[in-house]
Amino acid sequence: MSIQFQIEATRGPARLGKLTTAHGVIETPVFMPVGTVATVKGVSQDVLEELGVQILLGNTYHLYLRPGVDVVRRMGGLHGFMSWNRPTLTDSGGFQVFSLNELRKVTEEGVTFRSHLDGSSHVFTPESAMAAQIGLGADIIMAFDECTEYPAERERARASMELTVRWAARSKTYFDEHKDEVPWRSSRFSVLSSQNDGSSFTTENWEPGTGNCPTQALFGIVQGGMDRELRRESALRTVEIGFPGYAIGGLSVGEPREVTHEIVASTLEHLPEDKPRYLMGVGTPDEIAVYAKMGVDMMDCVLPTRAARHGLLFTSEGKISIKQARFAQDEGPLDPACSCRVCSRYSRAYLRHLYAANELLAQVLNSIHNLSFYLDTMRRVRAEMAGYDIHPPKSKV
Amino acid sequence: MSIQFQIEATRGPARLGKLTTAHGVIETPVFMPVGTVATVKGVSQDVLEELGVQILLGNTYHLYLRPGVDVVRRMGGLHGFMSWNRPTLTDSGGFQVFSLNELRKVTEEGVTFRSHLDGSSHVFTPESAMAAQIGLGADIIMAFDECTEYPAERERARASMELTVRWAARSKTYFDEHKDEVPWRSSRFSVLSSQNDGSSFTTENWEPGTGNCPTQALFGIVQGGMDRELRRESALRTVEIGFPGYAIGGLSVGEPREVTHEIVASTLEHLPEDKPRYLMGVGTPDEIAVYAKMGVDMMDCVLPTRAARHGLLFTSEGKISIKQARFAQDEGPLDPACSCRVCSRYSRAYLRHLYAANELLAQVLNSIHNLSFYLDTMRRVRAEMAGYDIHPPKSKV
Repeated sequence: MSIQFQIEATRGPARLGKLTTAHGVIETPVFMPVGTVATVKGVSQDVLEELGVQILLGNTYHLYLRPGVDVVRRMGGLHGFMSWNRPTLTDSGGFQVFSLNELRKVTEEGVTFRSHLDGSSHVFTPESAMAAQIGLGADIIMAFDECTEYPAERERARASMELTVRWAARSKTYFDEHKDEVPWRSSRFSVLSSQNDGSSFTTENWEPGTGNCPTQALFGIVQGGMDRELRRESALRTVEIGFPGYAIGGLSVGEPREVTHEIVASTLEHLPEDKPRYLMGVGTPDEIAVYAKMGVDMMDCVLPTRAARHGLLFTSEGKISIKQARFAQDEGPLDPACSCRVCSRYSRAYLRHLYAANELLAQVLNSIHNLSFYLDTMRRVRAEMAGYDIHPPKSKV
Repeated sequence: MSIQFQIEATRGPARLGKLTTAHGVIETPVFMPVGTVATVKGVSQDVLEELGVQILLGNTYHLYLRPGVDVVRRMGGLHGFMSWNRPTLTDSGGFQVFSLNELRKVTEEGVTFRSHLDGSSHVFTPESAMAAQIGLGADIIMAFDECTEYPAERERARASMELTVRWAARSKTYFDEHKDEVPWRSSRFSVLSSQNDGSSFTTENWEPGTGNCPTQALFGIVQGGMDRELRRESALRTVEIGFPGYAIGGLSVGEPREVTHEIVASTLEHLPEDKPRYLMGVGTPDEIAVYAKMGVDMMDCVLPTRAARHGLLFTSEGKISIKQARFAQDEGPLDPACSCRVCSRYSRAYLRHLYAANELLAQVLNSIHNLSFYLDTMRRVRAEMAGYDIHPPKSKV
């Protein structure tokens, strides 16, 4: 067993669910903050817990280069390495390698690329990407895929999609043969479990080394560019290989938002209803709410933290640029509707000052607020669904 | 009334005390972290509270330039501006202006200097430095002084010391005439008080606008270079002007540590025993413990946070450079004897990774630990004194 996914309510295509992983239960739809190299930039793990982060994403490409898979594996995987006992997910490295542009070469076997750090040459194949992700030990890992560039000719998009399907099959084969090697299936797992906050259903009943101990879950990724027919084919062929969850990749690569929306909608139709659906690398707070209502269960995006570092803050009153002079003497909270530790304590004037003075604390506090705003957005989506379909509103009881 | 200082125990020249200010009681000897522009770099105010920071230092020069005194004053002073309701102290700007080297010109009237930010020209006089510090509203503020360069000829050191004495008198005159203008003596003060955590003796009995409401406390500064006789004369003449506390300035400016030690020791002899003594801008953890045992009550230093940002960490096992490869797979805590939130949760391997990857969180976590180490050092000094002179060791009861 890898994960369990239980749908507790639906509202149109949207689903309220519980995704049970080796390190705990995730309420879906869920937003997953990005912790590129085993850290969400500027935000400590205890603050992430306080914010209600349910699952963290790590980037295999970055972790593979630094600190290296072996270092992470020896410390019990990402959970032990970064002292994070809630669920985690790693991408396959495919998207990051895709982003390297001039530094990569794709063949049937895999991708040869040069490190953005020192120019050293490396190869990712479906097999080596799985080995890396098994060593990193995230609860959910991703098949190795090729992210099709945008724009792409139809034949190019088809070839790329078909390569991704073949790589998905190889990823699954390698994973099935090696899934017992995940670092927390060793005796070390019991050490980690004892530090768990109890949110996991798994720690009490599992015996390390027996079938009771869960494995990682490998998700397949649908590609196919901006072509609905290719997306359909990719979805069907990926589902045919069979995974416990499916991702929609290759979006937010430069296409207009309407196209993203259309491709997401049409692809979701071809994914099984009883499996979690993960839309990779999107979007603004408004967009993640929309995608959740379309039936997406999981999303990640660097936007909240990246925007925060540039002083762009999401609030219930819209996006603001905290560097603007109009905030210099604004004693009000960043977002009056937000109860995060930043909005409860600091004024816009103080946040504006920290940003203008290029202070570290600006990046820290801005990141905390933006993450809080994303997590609140998804909490509201879940509460709405729970209210409509499970718990009647209190006034009607 | 500005402050009250009560000595609760002595051990040789060392003193265990309670310093009561408008925003709370400080146990001395105390280490004061530096929050240059109203932020301790990378560390949020709630973490500072958790670390047990009793009093924060701000730099008048930096705050005067950015965000400007008016902005801070309108928000209730530093306490309101940075949402910090424990005691604060500002320096006079003299030391920072001194550090500008080529950018300043000293006359009897004051110092003309150019901003390190934009080259704009400004003047600090004893009067304008007081006005700035009254606007910033720290609980303890400092007379405007000239920090004598090192090395200096004796005549140069004498002239500089005498200038500082004349400036001290002018500082006091201006302060006495304007001390009611501190922002928290207005109605705003009651707002601030209601947010207070209750550690202050002052909030219950004070009525804003009456004599019951405390003022800031202005401390004098002893100069005199590395000349014991000049230091003696500076101390006597500063004490003659009369302040509720005295600082030893002009040290840690390049002189050997033995000289610092000698000047501190000889200057302390000439300072009144019933007033708090503040040694400015020192030192390593070992040094601050030594100075406390010599009879210094208050110290500040940027070293814990500055060193942290360079990966230099103070531990019970000595100073370490976390960037070293030998920590890459070290699963142990940074300092096994430390119970701070960094040492309780993260491994040296993780901290080394964060630093090597140039991650924001490295600076945040390193700063938290180093501050914790400094604060623990001073807590131990206080506990020792309390144990010897007030509370007999439990085994002897």
